[in-house]
Amino acid sequence: MKELTIVKVGGKVIDDHEALASFLDAFTDVPSPKILVHGGGKVASDFGERLGITPKLIDGRRITDAPTLELVIMVYGGLVNKNIVAQLQARSENAIGLTGADANVMSAVKRPVSQVDYGFVGDVTKEDVGVSTLSKLIEAELTPVFCPLTHDKQGNLLNTNADTIASILGVAMAENYRVNLIYCFEQNGVLEDFGKKIVIKVLYRDRYDKLKSEGTIHAGMIPKLDNAFNALEGGVHQVKIGSFQSLKALLLGELGTKITIN
Amino acid sequence: MKELTIVKVGGKVIDDHEALASFLDAFTDVPSPKILVHGGGKVASDFGERLGITPKLIDGRRITDAPTLELVIMVYGGLVNKNIVAQLQARSENAIGLTGADANVMSAVKRPVSQVDYGFVGDVTKEDVGVSTLSKLIEAELTPVFCPLTHDKQGNLLNTNADTIASILGVAMAENYRVNLIYCFEQNGVLEDFGKKIVIKVLYRDRYDKLKSEGTIHAGMIPKLDNAFNALEGGVHQVKIGSFQSLKALLLGELGTKITIN
Repeated sequence: MKELTIVKVGGKVIDDHEALASFLDAFTDVPSPKILVHGGGKVASDFGERLGITPKLIDGRRITDAPTLELVIMVYGGLVNKNIVAQLQARSENAIGLTGADANVMSAVKRPVSQVDYGFVGDVTKEDVGVSTLSKLIEAELTPVFCPLTHDKQGNLLNTNADTIASILGVAMAENYRVNLIYCFEQNGVLEDFGKKIVIKVLYRDRYDKLKSEGTIHAGMIPKLDNAFNALEGGVHQVKIGSFQSLKALLLGELGTKITIN
Repeated sequence: MKELTIVKVGGKVIDDHEALASFLDAFTDVPSPKILVHGGGKVASDFGERLGITPKLIDGRRITDAPTLELVIMVYGGLVNKNIVAQLQARSENAIGLTGADANVMSAVKRPVSQVDYGFVGDVTKEDVGVSTLSKLIEAELTPVFCPLTHDKQGNLLNTNADTIASILGVAMAENYRVNLIYCFEQNGVLEDFGKKIVIKVLYRDRYDKLKSEGTIHAGMIPKLDNAFNALEGGVHQVKIGSFQSLKALLLGELGTKITIN
């Protein structure tokens, strides 16, 4: 089975021109076929502030009301995505920017309102991925660059967490490819001790559950790691987590945390 | 030779939800393969105002300084393009939104500074079009939706007039297809007399030159018609100009102005 590398990048790197350039150099060196999934960065909040749109958060999760949806379509789908694509093209990487609506590569269901109304947020399953179209794009030697937007097939774009998009993409593409999924963020990996910054080299499911119950793994990491374990359980070959500054070493298995079910 | 229809739409329709919906219904009925090129609409100025970005115009042409470039990347490449794509997907039209950077479908050269510095504006020729990639997308039964942005292959996006994009696309794609190019805007066609609103059914080059020298054809129409004649001279099979409310009738040749060299 052919290999496919999916790299998710998010956090401060999106807003830091030099760090992003250096990450994109490393991404260009990753063997094709590959897919990049990017988050939104702080730039959405900055533009939101200038536009007088107040960010709404519940339990650290962004609530996407109508003005926020417009904002993230502009920033994620426009500014961030297109700048990354243009910068990859400057590196002769034939990137193509995508929301889930483009070529219907990822549809979603608007999250039902229960205790919390998350607004225009899309929940996705592997059945929502346009595997055949994505495979065609990849076979045409294009490198898809996903921003964290999906669509409901009724004309509305929806906000979907980028970690989740990367995980679901991995599971869906695992039908056709041996998928390596790499989550890049600020830290060097999953840390076993916040003070000492010791990176866990291999994180097993049972240890994850233990660290979670002890509170060593904090709130922000939990959805990321849940996505990582879901990817493995869904058929992704390998999942690594580490720093956006060490993409090459992550690929080679020299740095970062390897996520393992058993 | 296979037919390809390229439709350019611009002006107020972009900002008018109902008019846009009705136009997209008609566009969905256009036989494939087809390409949509859209302009920016007033929404860019509205967001510019909210962001404190003052529009700069010289002779009715937008000057694209750095803040304006960010604005148009967000609005043209994000908000307008992705909403059109999502709305076409709701009509089961498999649209894919593109800037010129995506899949390198249209590169450009930053306009040299002469008397006027237009800023981040890209000039294009037919050699800048990724004909092979666009043909692959079309053969994969996708409908490209272009926004008026190109790139310089050095990591920068550039602002390029949507009428020009449509014309250059037509000329480049004429290598592989028998291209019909349709410009849709507010008016019912090219008018022979402003007061009476009489539409010229067939506009020949010599009559255009006469109307231009008489001043009957006004400033805003001149670049559009120059693009139309350039398209025909470059090998486009047919060019029509008319109302976004009559796309079907324009296609059938019942309404609008047919542009003809001789």
